[in-house]
Amino acid sequence: MDASTTESHPFDRAMALAPQTPAPGADGMLRLDGRTSADYANMVGPYGGITAAQALQAVLLHPARLGEPVAFTGNFAAALADGDFCVDVQPARTNRSTQHWLVTTRQAGAVVFTATVVTARRRDTWGATDARMPTAPPPDELPPMPPLPHPRWLARYDMRWIEGAMPRTWDGTEHPDSLTRLWVRDAPPRRLDFPGLLALCDVFYPRVWLRRATLTPIGTVSFTVYFHAGAEDLAVVGTGHLLAEARAQRFHQGYFDQSGALWRRDRTLLATTHQLVYYRE
Amino acid sequence: MDASTTESHPFDRAMALAPQTPAPGADGMLRLDGRTSADYANMVGPYGGITAAQALQAVLLHPARLGEPVAFTGNFAAALADGDFCVDVQPARTNRSTQHWLVTTRQAGAVVFTATVVTARRRDTWGATDARMPTAPPPDELPPMPPLPHPRWLARYDMRWIEGAMPRTWDGTEHPDSLTRLWVRDAPPRRLDFPGLLALCDVFYPRVWLRRATLTPIGTVSFTVYFHAGAEDLAVVGTGHLLAEARAQRFHQGYFDQSGALWRRDRTLLATTHQLVYYRE
Repeated sequence: MDASTTESHPFDRAMALAPQTPAPGADGMLRLDGRTSADYANMVGPYGGITAAQALQAVLLHPARLGEPVAFTGNFAAALADGDFCVDVQPARTNRSTQHWLVTTRQAGAVVFTATVVTARRRDTWGATDARMPTAPPPDELPPMPPLPHPRWLARYDMRWIEGAMPRTWDGTEHPDSLTRLWVRDAPPRRLDFPGLLALCDVFYPRVWLRRATLTPIGTVSFTVYFHAGAEDLAVVGTGHLLAEARAQRFHQGYFDQSGALWRRDRTLLATTHQLVYYRE
Repeated sequence: MDASTTESHPFDRAMALAPQTPAPGADGMLRLDGRTSADYANMVGPYGGITAAQALQAVLLHPARLGEPVAFTGNFAAALADGDFCVDVQPARTNRSTQHWLVTTRQAGAVVFTATVVTARRRDTWGATDARMPTAPPPDELPPMPPLPHPRWLARYDMRWIEGAMPRTWDGTEHPDSLTRLWVRDAPPRRLDFPGLLALCDVFYPRVWLRRATLTPIGTVSFTVYFHAGAEDLAVVGTGHLLAEARAQRFHQGYFDQSGALWRRDRTLLATTHQLVYYRE
């Protein structure tokens, strides 16, 4: 049986959010209940890509939503605890073809995550891709990353390293650059959709670990995804691998940035993604 | 007289926000009144970099603010009209060394701009810069862009093109890439600070205009800046030029992205910046 066609995929279970009321309030606010997923557990709390995808999912579930997501920025305000959370989602402004959303995720009344999302109705226009997809051997010619018992979310992605794999020894040897390239898809395979693609954009292990071969504590503080594809473009992927790459630009006084891109095998750029990450030393 | 040492600089006048109450409310919310600046007028309404800088300024003026800005994302929900606006600024979460802010700018009660801002106390850590500043002739060897009467905000920046200047003729000739490099500073010169740097991050004219030599209508929908520098690093700039560069990655169905970087002359990376921009055809 193809796991991608059932509702039993761990990702879909993680995306299950239950509206507290049948309809949004007068201000458009809808509150949904969710629960962190043990399948996507990180060192502490859940994998950040899942927390972000849940915020996007809340927007997608809102009955007044217009169009498809084009821009997402989420801010990790505090480490999530394993357990229940609620998501408040509200349209801040609705225009003719675009809509601006505010999302706030809380645990025990305290804000743990905030996001702003732009959705839009796309139209055909002139188009071009200036970025170039790197050449790489096809995913079936590369070995999958061996399963690691911990953290659990790693087992939810099939990763095939092309360049910049996780260091094997944490001996403090400086790596000359911070570039990682890999083929990646959900494990078990799952048909790509917007929440799935958003979560994949956070799949890169911390650039500072690669650069320094040192396991310094880290935490993403802000995470942005620009979608360059509509639902039909994602459907073409099916359950196939994406080529994903990311690199840092500067590490300075406790914060580094990371910029990445995710490509379909036919060289279509699906998303670009950026984040700012805290590191301790 | 050095305009940078007076309070009469147009940028400082644009940043003037008046709190409606002497202190924030019980929820930490502070409301400030502002007015768009004719000095920074764009084709319609104000230059987007100024609207974003005003949102950051509201955070900097909040009495409970902790540390310096590290990440900023602003969403342009609607075209601002010339005239009054108010900014609501509220800390969503305050941690030991980081703070998460929500900012909403309204005109006549309607949301026109939203932002999330992360501020943090920085500490000395290991550091490195992976991105490379391009080589370029010094700014004094390049001619400033000739003054254009319209839009007015262009006269507020001293721009010296290195590569990818604004097309001279709008004849639809496709340009092979979307890269622009320039030296830039405020005009008249002004000492660099966080709002000033944020506004500079929006200084690139639309990549789609360069790529196509066609004046299609455009509008930034989401704008992110990561600060890689503290106030002391900005102070070193004084009123000097920054090297700024930006390029697009994909233009698709009405939206393109842009990634950029701003450098101090001594090759210190001060900020990286990203935006998603709507274009009409």
